[in-house]
Amino acid sequence: MGLKPDGKTPNMKLFDMHKAPNPRRVRIFLAEKGISLPMEQVDIQAGDNLKPHYLAINPRGVLPTLLLDDGSILDESMAICRYFEMVQPEPNLFGRDPLEAAQVEQWQRRMEFDGMYNIAAAFRNGQPAYAGRAQPGAGPETAQIPALAARGAMLAAAWLDGLEARLEGRDYLAATRFTVADITAFVCIDFARWIGLRAGEAHPNILAYHARIKARPSSQA
Amino acid sequence: MGLKPDGKTPNMKLFDMHKAPNPRRVRIFLAEKGISLPMEQVDIQAGDNLKPHYLAINPRGVLPTLLLDDGSILDESMAICRYFEMVQPEPNLFGRDPLEAAQVEQWQRRMEFDGMYNIAAAFRNGQPAYAGRAQPGAGPETAQIPALAARGAMLAAAWLDGLEARLEGRDYLAATRFTVADITAFVCIDFARWIGLRAGEAHPNILAYHARIKARPSSQA
Repeated sequence: MGLKPDGKTPNMKLFDMHKAPNPRRVRIFLAEKGISLPMEQVDIQAGDNLKPHYLAINPRGVLPTLLLDDGSILDESMAICRYFEMVQPEPNLFGRDPLEAAQVEQWQRRMEFDGMYNIAAAFRNGQPAYAGRAQPGAGPETAQIPALAARGAMLAAAWLDGLEARLEGRDYLAATRFTVADITAFVCIDFARWIGLRAGEAHPNILAYHARIKARPSSQA
Repeated sequence: MGLKPDGKTPNMKLFDMHKAPNPRRVRIFLAEKGISLPMEQVDIQAGDNLKPHYLAINPRGVLPTLLLDDGSILDESMAICRYFEMVQPEPNLFGRDPLEAAQVEQWQRRMEFDGMYNIAAAFRNGQPAYAGRAQPGAGPETAQIPALAARGAMLAAAWLDGLEARLEGRDYLAATRFTVADITAFVCIDFARWIGLRAGEAHPNILAYHARIKARPSSQA
């Protein structure tokens, strides 16, 4: 399904950075739905997200951003995914009943808070390229905090061990089938490599899980 | 509506800390739905969330926690709220159509990430009572980082100014009616006082908005 060719969404576009984790979550989600959208690349590392061209579209300067037909935007990954979940409910990725939906939300958020945010804290507070912008987007200048980079790395390692335990005897993170929680977990496992944190011999469940998700065509999106 | 008296949920219980922001979000949500649940108080400041009695229920040691009939738990505030949204869809608090649902999710998350997490960073890294546990819950010991307290306070102030701008000409944050995004915003405005950040003369929109939400009976939950 392409949302553009039907003529109903002539201006819809996704602003993307191919290697960044949050845009990748949205691309995988869209691939699972079979939805294709026009995309435009914005290079965060080069600071292109803070230049006038992009700030005119999204004053917050974050990615991904979904531009809607009326010129308004959505710029939270899970808000963009929920939009498409309601536009095209199948395949269901957010849960079919109250308990499943709650468990998907819970595990999705744990991957964000225990995984993604700690990895990001370690990365943005440690990489010279992000000096003065340790927080994403166009907010106030934020100096890097080396102690926060260290705390992020320590908590990210604890997250990885917790994920290994959770996956004992499970094929998927939140439900008995693939959901958006698995998208976030999979992207976080790869994102962790940016700070040198890799699943290894101590993480057989994660290695099998990662291979299972990577075998889905959507993982290449 | 009580979920317990109907006999279907004899063991359901909410573990709560009355003055903490996340449990308050869930209590207000339940009050808007007209749902009453048995509650048990757990004092985070005294460290009761890290004692064996509570860790046996929730090894993560966080609040709020919803105990389900089968002994399993939900312990992310928005996961608990989404559970009850599907159990009892009216009044709708998460959005009725794709765009409204996406906007509710987006603004709810902005309040969390730009508001709540910065306020919490300032509070937990600055208050002597939280020395050694600057991160919530039963994870690894985390030393306080004074520079992170300062960054949190600075970004929380920027969040408050951004909220003032967003509320220009609006009665509610995400939609033309009250939604869960307003619950998070309202709780964050009050939570900010814990770090000495108060809406004042420079924030007339926030003051009017806060009074509007406070006038709802649910605000007393």
